[in-house]
Amino acid sequence: MSDMFGEKLKLALFGESHGAGVGAVISGLPAGFEIDFDAIATDMARRAPGNSDLSTPRKEADEAEILSGVFNGRTTGTALAVLIRNTNTRSGDYQPQFPRPGHADYTAAVKYGGFQDYRGGGHFSARVTAPLVWAGSLTRQILAQKGITLGAHIARIGTVEDTRFTQPEAAVLDALRSKPFPVLNETVEQPMREQILAAKAEGDSVGGIIECAAVGVPAGLGDPFFDSMESRLSHLLFSIPAIKGVEFGEGFGMAAMRGSEANDPLRMQDGRVVTTTNHNGGINGGITNGMPVVLRVACKPTPSIAKPQQTVDLTTGENVEFAVHGRHDPCVVTRAVPVVEACMALCLLDALL
Amino acid sequence: MSDMFGEKLKLALFGESHGAGVGAVISGLPAGFEIDFDAIATDMARRAPGNSDLSTPRKEADEAEILSGVFNGRTTGTALAVLIRNTNTRSGDYQPQFPRPGHADYTAAVKYGGFQDYRGGGHFSARVTAPLVWAGSLTRQILAQKGITLGAHIARIGTVEDTRFTQPEAAVLDALRSKPFPVLNETVEQPMREQILAAKAEGDSVGGIIECAAVGVPAGLGDPFFDSMESRLSHLLFSIPAIKGVEFGEGFGMAAMRGSEANDPLRMQDGRVVTTTNHNGGINGGITNGMPVVLRVACKPTPSIAKPQQTVDLTTGENVEFAVHGRHDPCVVTRAVPVVEACMALCLLDALL
Amino acid sequence: MSDMFGEKLKLALFGESHGAGVGAVISGLPAGFEIDFDAIATDMARRAPGNSDLSTPRKEADEAEILSGVFNGRTTGTALAVLIRNTNTRSGDYQPQFPRPGHADYTAAVKYGGFQDYRGGGHFSARVTAPLVWAGSLTRQILAQKGITLGAHIARIGTVEDTRFTQPEAAVLDALRSKPFPVLNETVEQPMREQILAAKAEGDSVGGIIECAAVGVPAGLGDPFFDSMESRLSHLLFSIPAIKGVEFGEGFGMAAMRGSEANDPLRMQDGRVVTTTNHNGGINGGITNGMPVVLRVACKPTPSIAKPQQTVDLTTGENVEFAVHGRHDPCVVTRAVPVVEACMALCLLDALL
Amino acid sequence: MSDMFGEKLKLALFGESHGAGVGAVISGLPAGFEIDFDAIATDMARRAPGNSDLSTPRKEADEAEILSGVFNGRTTGTALAVLIRNTNTRSGDYQPQFPRPGHADYTAAVKYGGFQDYRGGGHFSARVTAPLVWAGSLTRQILAQKGITLGAHIARIGTVEDTRFTQPEAAVLDALRSKPFPVLNETVEQPMREQILAAKAEGDSVGGIIECAAVGVPAGLGDPFFDSMESRLSHLLFSIPAIKGVEFGEGFGMAAMRGSEANDPLRMQDGRVVTTTNHNGGINGGITNGMPVVLRVACKPTPSIAKPQQTVDLTTGENVEFAVHGRHDPCVVTRAVPVVEACMALCLLDALL
Repeated sequence: MSDMFGEKLKLALFGESHGAGVGAVISGLPAGFEIDFDAIATDMARRAPGNSDLSTPRKEADEAEILSGVFNGRTTGTALAVLIRNTNTRSGDYQPQFPRPGHADYTAAVKYGGFQDYRGGGHFSARVTAPLVWAGSLTRQILAQKGITLGAHIARIGTVEDTRFTQPEAAVLDALRSKPFPVLNETVEQPMREQILAAKAEGDSVGGIIECAAVGVPAGLGDPFFDSMESRLSHLLFSIPAIKGVEFGEGFGMAAMRGSEANDPLRMQDGRVVTTTNHNGGINGGITNGMPVVLRVACKPTPSIAKPQQTVDLTTGENVEFAVHGRHDPCVVTRAVPVVEACMALCLLDALL
Repeated sequence: MSDMFGEKLKLALFGESHGAGVGAVISGLPAGFEIDFDAIATDMARRAPGNSDLSTPRKEADEAEILSGVFNGRTTGTALAVLIRNTNTRSGDYQPQFPRPGHADYTAAVKYGGFQDYRGGGHFSARVTAPLVWAGSLTRQILAQKGITLGAHIARIGTVEDTRFTQPEAAVLDALRSKPFPVLNETVEQPMREQILAAKAEGDSVGGIIECAAVGVPAGLGDPFFDSMESRLSHLLFSIPAIKGVEFGEGFGMAAMRGSEANDPLRMQDGRVVTTTNHNGGINGGITNGMPVVLRVACKPTPSIAKPQQTVDLTTGENVEFAVHGRHDPCVVTRAVPVVEACMALCLLDALL
Repeated sequence: MSDMFGEKLKLALFGESHGAGVGAVISGLPAGFEIDFDAIATDMARRAPGNSDLSTPRKEADEAEILSGVFNGRTTGTALAVLIRNTNTRSGDYQPQFPRPGHADYTAAVKYGGFQDYRGGGHFSARVTAPLVWAGSLTRQILAQKGITLGAHIARIGTVEDTRFTQPEAAVLDALRSKPFPVLNETVEQPMREQILAAKAEGDSVGGIIECAAVGVPAGLGDPFFDSMESRLSHLLFSIPAIKGVEFGEGFGMAAMRGSEANDPLRMQDGRVVTTTNHNGGINGGITNGMPVVLRVACKPTPSIAKPQQTVDLTTGENVEFAVHGRHDPCVVTRAVPVVEACMALCLLDALL
Repeated sequence: MSDMFGEKLKLALFGESHGAGVGAVISGLPAGFEIDFDAIATDMARRAPGNSDLSTPRKEADEAEILSGVFNGRTTGTALAVLIRNTNTRSGDYQPQFPRPGHADYTAAVKYGGFQDYRGGGHFSARVTAPLVWAGSLTRQILAQKGITLGAHIARIGTVEDTRFTQPEAAVLDALRSKPFPVLNETVEQPMREQILAAKAEGDSVGGIIECAAVGVPAGLGDPFFDSMESRLSHLLFSIPAIKGVEFGEGFGMAAMRGSEANDPLRMQDGRVVTTTNHNGGINGGITNGMPVVLRVACKPTPSIAKPQQTVDLTTGENVEFAVHGRHDPCVVTRAVPVVEACMALCLLDALL
């Protein structure tokens, strides 16, 4: 696997933060789909840095060039390659001999014998998620045509929590996409922003939780034993740098529940089987049950912070104190929202094909 | 994928609760490994039901027959097949027309068009994890030879929590395996048992959390972007029926942390790079960093409970009230401990090969 | 991959010639298919040894036990495991220190460090193809329900050639299956038998060619660039021990042709596009074109022969002369016919799912 | 799979003949390899058209741009993406409503519902093999560092045959690469050229055979049952447009041999086991035996010919006569030589990792 993912819909990612660019090759797309490039640009802008005081001031154009797989504005059915060139890079900001705590600097140095492109995190930079968002945004359009809608919100920043999805409506999910700071309960936006700005002011960063849901998903998706819907989704979600936890429905909250509470009662409604609660997040036994698929992911605080930290000098083998310079996000959660949506969209389409 | 998993070390699972038996085919094992069958039997007994008042009284012999891949007591390097015949089955206990809430009954009926073997949950029964434990136990022996030790404990039952792993020692992990009720802080055992027995007394069930760790794991395992170590581990862990959440290191706790807290400081120790804390659970950027790999999984309460529940009659399409009869676990957490260990062992060996 | 194959329909094979048995796990089968076990037994008998003076006198019962995946006589949609126990084995016939020329004895010893089960060829025995035929026979039934018929004939034994398929009819392909010695031109049967018996009389063996075709295959199967229909078929066919060549349509004969001869003219016939010749064997650009898929495989002569041969003594490192004792086929071509059919059936169903 | 290939070393191909360009993403390369870009350019020139009167006069610059995965001239270990832009395209030459006999035009129209990029064959153009040669050329450098040398020659054009490899030397294989028309027996070059020019003069094309060998391959590569070395090699080789047959060692010639001839005698030589003949092409039981791996592929004559041919008009459903205009190769064999080498190199490195 490594840089390639998927069963029917396959994705290869490439690129580094300070190289020529980042991109993706998507194989297995249905032929003849007319792409809405504006909608993709909108999603790309949601992920792009430099849009507010909450993220890094580094501006990226993120203009995507189609290299193959599109003809007359439609997918051809063969490999679609997309390239996003890097434009605004400051290589001088990075010092390979001082691995940043919490980052991939040290592990990449071990795995690749020091030959990795360390500039700006290289292949481990969040920038590599740009083509993932591109692919996810296209995938979401295809899902929409099949009656599936998905959306995500910031469920937590630091100690501030948003309300949770219960039985989300498609309209609510769609509306989240046009919000610059997507939350369900708008009264939490300000406190969340304050947590981010407080961290920023201290040269620090803060973590959070993103909750993502899809409605209109048919019952029957997922291939147990080993390719449960949760297995596939978590596999892709844990590829996102910074994700350290994934849960479905009540997730870890299930641990404190009784079976009589956690079991979702089955009822007939308008001629189809539904559940009156959705503690299982739309998945039973690894297979979708037709209810909204709901998942939550934990994002760790950005490891690159201005505060001095303890690390080692890989060239001398000595302990040193070190502060990361350069432009970094005090919180990646806001920009990660479309990345989480992309992963969910890609997995759902892969399962549907 | 579906019933097969892995990249280099591959596993195919088969079987149903009330069919001829359950088993596994393991491909890609190193040749010449001398198998300790007694150690495997010990792990199998840890998963087997009927061992205490905490689990279902249904006794299963779980005797494993090697069908291939072992010659003169050693692995041959070609496919190892193992079969565990079913012996104690009561098919009369199951009624396919009433899908149990929270179980795979309804989703399996949709996916397989009603042709699934529904007796005792069929392929969705926890019994299918028996060959997984067998394979995991063998794998753990191979890992031990490579200096890797792993172990797990019950981190939570209902509202009672055990202490967490910080920097676990191999000896502690090994000792957990011989405990009938593996916890770190022994004062929580009794309250945990009481939560299970209380649920049982009420015809109910209760959930929990299992924490698993591996020490001696070399730095450099994991293949980002898409095959991060977290991606692989979560993929297999979410195959286990009942698992609804997976987190690494602090996991969801990261959401409330600052970068300055969450980043694990890097230090030189005895000539090698270590981290003084392990909030990232031994994995950075999807690659192991040489520190203990620590993960936690959330187990939902057993869906099969004696309490009356709301469901539908799939034959008439009517809403009904329904109570599950038969012998069920009031809490699967205790028996799931070796299953979680098995998943971790299989993933680690797959990554090492 | 190794002992597992396939994308949607997956197959795991296990077993050795002189171990407990051989078998397969098949994942991804459609649910609800009613299995004709008698038809499978018929195909198994075609592969089984001991049926004539052309094959080894070693009799094998080849009784297949279903371990999982079948309920009330129908496929459940989850993993189907089948076990064929070994009954008639003479381990004394094999001497691991003298690798048989042309056989896997030496390469297996290198690859598995001497730990392979060498008795009777172990995992490299033709016996491992028994569960492959079982799986292929079931698969062929499913294909028949979809209007696809396939069959094979002995195209060559030694220097004697049968006529070739041009545009085979389903009835002809079906009829081949009931012939004990399947050829198109019955006048070649006797000379072919004589070549086999002549080789046998001299303690030698002889090779041949099998031609296999499928009709009713819809246009559009195959996934270029890398999963062309030829790629998939050849991958599985070259798994069969003894196969050293695979060609489609005119195959190697294409080398001497002009484009104006080799190109199959396209014509409308009964409202659909057909080709008036089929030099491309029903595949263009890696994708089926709706015409019969026709392929040919070269079988090498059985390496196990009674004639003295030159080999090395792996224990002393000395050159020795050596004769293989025991019961061996003077020609595997006749028994390999259903194996080739099985591979074609499995690939076609995998591509159709 | 479709546009992605491989187990450890993975390759994704993209691009169309008349789109933005063609390219590849290569995942799983070892880190730190210093790339010889000149050697790659040499191999690219061997595949490029327009170099002689034997191929299409269409000139292509084939300049490759590295998009990722290379840092300071060395591989980083993460995905290497390469892009070759299209520069010289004449879209007017192609008419989608008249599928060329023998080409993928009709099957692509069926598979992709008419949405494929049909200009110049699109994704089915031989141009897509340019990045395959790039990847193969890099791979060959890595193999050379491991002591493995490979090379290929034109074994047949039409009715003219070159001599065959018996036990090829590394120096011979290397020398073939610098020949503009690589044959072993130089007296066949002129007759071969004449066959090509004769076909060209008649507005026709001609087929041929390419033989490729690798020496220095260690014994033990290949993973039976399903990933025999022959299975892997043939899978990739049959991805090349125009290949209709693949054989190893004597291949189809084995059909007419006796076991006593075909079996390669094993002997000790300089302390290691060798075979005195190599009829099995260096592979026994799907595993390399340390002798040269030798294979042959059959190339069909280019389907695009100037001669009038019978086809259908897909827009009207009528039979028509049709002649392909534009610039085409009268014989693809010469340009396919480095493509075959590339496939062999990629498979060998994948098996070695």
